[in-house]
Amino acid sequence: MTTADPTEKRERIVVIGADAAGMSAAHQALRSAKAAGRDVDVIALEKTSDTSYSACGIPYLVSGTVGATDELSARTPEKHRAMGVDLRMNVTATKIDLNTRTVTYAHNAGGEEVVRFDKLVLATGAHPIIPQWAVTDGGELVGGVHPVKDLDHARHWLDLVSRRSRGGIAIRRRAAVVGGGYIGVEMAEAMVQRGFSTTLLTRSAVMSSLDSDMSERVREAVQAGGVDVITNTTIADIDIVDGHVRSVTASNGQVYPTDVVVLGLGVRPATELGVAAGLPIGEQGGYLPNERQEVAEGVWAAGDCCEVIERIRGKYVLAPLGTHANKQGRICGYDVLGGSHAFPGVLGTAITRFVSAGTHVEVARTGLGTREATEAGYDVESLVTVGGTASGYMPERSPIATKIIADRRTRRLLGVQIVGGAQSAKRIDTAAAVLWGEMSVDDLATMDLSYAPPFATVWEAIQLAARRLSDRM
Amino acid sequence: MTTADPTEKRERIVVIGADAAGMSAAHQALRSAKAAGRDVDVIALEKTSDTSYSACGIPYLVSGTVGATDELSARTPEKHRAMGVDLRMNVTATKIDLNTRTVTYAHNAGGEEVVRFDKLVLATGAHPIIPQWAVTDGGELVGGVHPVKDLDHARHWLDLVSRRSRGGIAIRRRAAVVGGGYIGVEMAEAMVQRGFSTTLLTRSAVMSSLDSDMSERVREAVQAGGVDVITNTTIADIDIVDGHVRSVTASNGQVYPTDVVVLGLGVRPATELGVAAGLPIGEQGGYLPNERQEVAEGVWAAGDCCEVIERIRGKYVLAPLGTHANKQGRICGYDVLGGSHAFPGVLGTAITRFVSAGTHVEVARTGLGTREATEAGYDVESLVTVGGTASGYMPERSPIATKIIADRRTRRLLGVQIVGGAQSAKRIDTAAAVLWGEMSVDDLATMDLSYAPPFATVWEAIQLAARRLSDRM
Repeated sequence: MTTADPTEKRERIVVIGADAAGMSAAHQALRSAKAAGRDVDVIALEKTSDTSYSACGIPYLVSGTVGATDELSARTPEKHRAMGVDLRMNVTATKIDLNTRTVTYAHNAGGEEVVRFDKLVLATGAHPIIPQWAVTDGGELVGGVHPVKDLDHARHWLDLVSRRSRGGIAIRRRAAVVGGGYIGVEMAEAMVQRGFSTTLLTRSAVMSSLDSDMSERVREAVQAGGVDVITNTTIADIDIVDGHVRSVTASNGQVYPTDVVVLGLGVRPATELGVAAGLPIGEQGGYLPNERQEVAEGVWAAGDCCEVIERIRGKYVLAPLGTHANKQGRICGYDVLGGSHAFPGVLGTAITRFVSAGTHVEVARTGLGTREATEAGYDVESLVTVGGTASGYMPERSPIATKIIADRRTRRLLGVQIVGGAQSAKRIDTAAAVLWGEMSVDDLATMDLSYAPPFATVWEAIQLAARRLSDRM
Repeated sequence: MTTADPTEKRERIVVIGADAAGMSAAHQALRSAKAAGRDVDVIALEKTSDTSYSACGIPYLVSGTVGATDELSARTPEKHRAMGVDLRMNVTATKIDLNTRTVTYAHNAGGEEVVRFDKLVLATGAHPIIPQWAVTDGGELVGGVHPVKDLDHARHWLDLVSRRSRGGIAIRRRAAVVGGGYIGVEMAEAMVQRGFSTTLLTRSAVMSSLDSDMSERVREAVQAGGVDVITNTTIADIDIVDGHVRSVTASNGQVYPTDVVVLGLGVRPATELGVAAGLPIGEQGGYLPNERQEVAEGVWAAGDCCEVIERIRGKYVLAPLGTHANKQGRICGYDVLGGSHAFPGVLGTAITRFVSAGTHVEVARTGLGTREATEAGYDVESLVTVGGTASGYMPERSPIATKIIADRRTRRLLGVQIVGGAQSAKRIDTAAAVLWGEMSVDDLATMDLSYAPPFATVWEAIQLAARRLSDRM
């Protein structure tokens, strides 16, 4: 254990976690310090050997769309160091002491150190959810079974999809994807593109963050794209031969032989350190930052380890996305040096697509779904309208189903969901801006959106949908 | 002349012009009447033999992207009649009498009639601007010279682009496009796609509705796509042989040999009838409707013959676009029967693209440009940021240059302009929604927009642009 070092007297910011949130905080702190003419040291602790990578890009790496793992890294450790971050890789923070203002960390190779902080930023991310059946008695993942969270998982997946045989026996290349959310759908696409005969099993629907009438459209498209989709199913058992998965058994008794199992069951905030240090934790298990992302005096948190305020209901939710991590990290970086930036919350905006031989479906949502809105006490009115992404006579036209959800009393827009073909889903941003401004369904129906034949119908699809609902309300 | 008919006692709505605005009004009036259990007759007068066509689609018809002229027609005359409109084709309204509440119209084939109205909707559209040099002493268009406004023009263009010879001499297939706005750029694309060696000549810049630093990017792309672009030039003279254009001479003295000349010089509101009837006309020559689109007691106007309120400055402008025509027509249809719908104005949102062998540039704008904003008294701050439409590691990523224009005092967003590759321009709608809600550049920078690798960078391109400007303000 060492605590003495020549920079001991300088202001010191310690960041735990060197991915999107942590490194956004670290670099913004350095920039803010430079702008203010202040001397600060920024120490970042990272338990893996990777920094600043795109977890969202992993399915595209596995599919072969992205050629190499390092393309997913926005910045290497060397680059971070060259920019002034005291980056300590392959070390695991084991204890935060808020009284002595220290963090203890262990080198993964052995040995422990304690580092003092003036300001602390928690950017510890999230853990993939690993069900009991996926773990051996020894506490290891069953062979062939992996989540999709970090670059080590990505490397396992690249290995698995490129193997042609195991123990001298040709692999039949069958994949089971467990979980029907964003990662599940994206990994199903990747496995199909790699030539795997793919089954997607999900507890409820495919894309259950959409209303069921919309998620059903996604299921149809994913199925049409060559994935065998089994909804309303959990995994009851797993068959393991020589340490490797051979099949999974669903709760309905059906056995699905498989060579690999994708765990796409979501994540939970990695808050063990903070819990042990006595920091408050929310109902979803994440830190509960104020709008400056502070969780205690002199302690900030950012990214997937946090809950965030969902603006419409004004309540904490989980929204583990890189775009929020970047924005929150940056706010920490300002505010650790006395800035007063605020994170204004989220709307639950999300987008993905599924592309497979002849099938191209895009999916997006923002704001509240029907159930959420109803539970929040709104007098919900909603309507699904199918339009086109371009004028009817243009060859690039694809269908776009838009669901508009609004409050009958105030006419306020509450949520929008889109399922459509190419160039449909990004329109969700227009709806997000309307929600951000707390505008009405009538505003969405009448505002001046762009029109030209290759880009929209003369009544833009989401406006047509809003107008129809507006007419009915 | 006949005025007596058996329906003389029923409420009668007369619509002049059977394109987007007029027919939206006609059908909404019929729907509203039906819903209210009222008996009304809707008479529509149309001077051409076409109804409800997409003028915006003509360049795509000329290019060959759209296979047949009738694909541009949303509804045939027969269909309108079947839906209950008393549609009188090939008749030209010649006089409105606001005292006797009558419209006089001439059959194009000869003969005149007078029709009484209770309510009148003016949907007379706009005239293409025809410069003096394009007209013969006899008042006809020079051979090979045509505007791009209605389906008769479209038919002329289809004929011109398919001709291989004239007077037994092979045509060299050279085109001069005069005008660098939306129609000019779209027709330049069409002519290039038809194999014409194409020169675009414009008085100022290509897409001068953008700031010059953005329009210059468009010029570069159009030029890269095979069009010879000549800016800051007018046409001084035209050389005519056997009644057909052979070359145009630019104001700089340069002679451009050509087989055809596209007139893409914009339009002016067709308001002669209303002027003669004493209706007030605005500075840009259009009718001046109130927010219910009424221009006088019992008289409404919609579409290209109107000026519209630009919301940010609250002043009348011209915005001749099908999307406004549809919305305004619908409002007339409601309000002629006592409804109280309002047209909330425009932001000047517009979009187009230019695609030619290897070049794909998309262009969009909304709100005020730098000059407009400065003239309106704002303390203008602006910045151009170049980002990407997708994550850096995704193959579909294309560049997107975004210019953000804001007011330094209030931080209000004033305008956004986009020039980029595939899937860049439709993002303008997000900016339009922000302008509609009178939100700030900080709102745009922090709002919850969608992110996934195929659709956006982790800082969405227009948000990154807004953030950079926000940081600087």
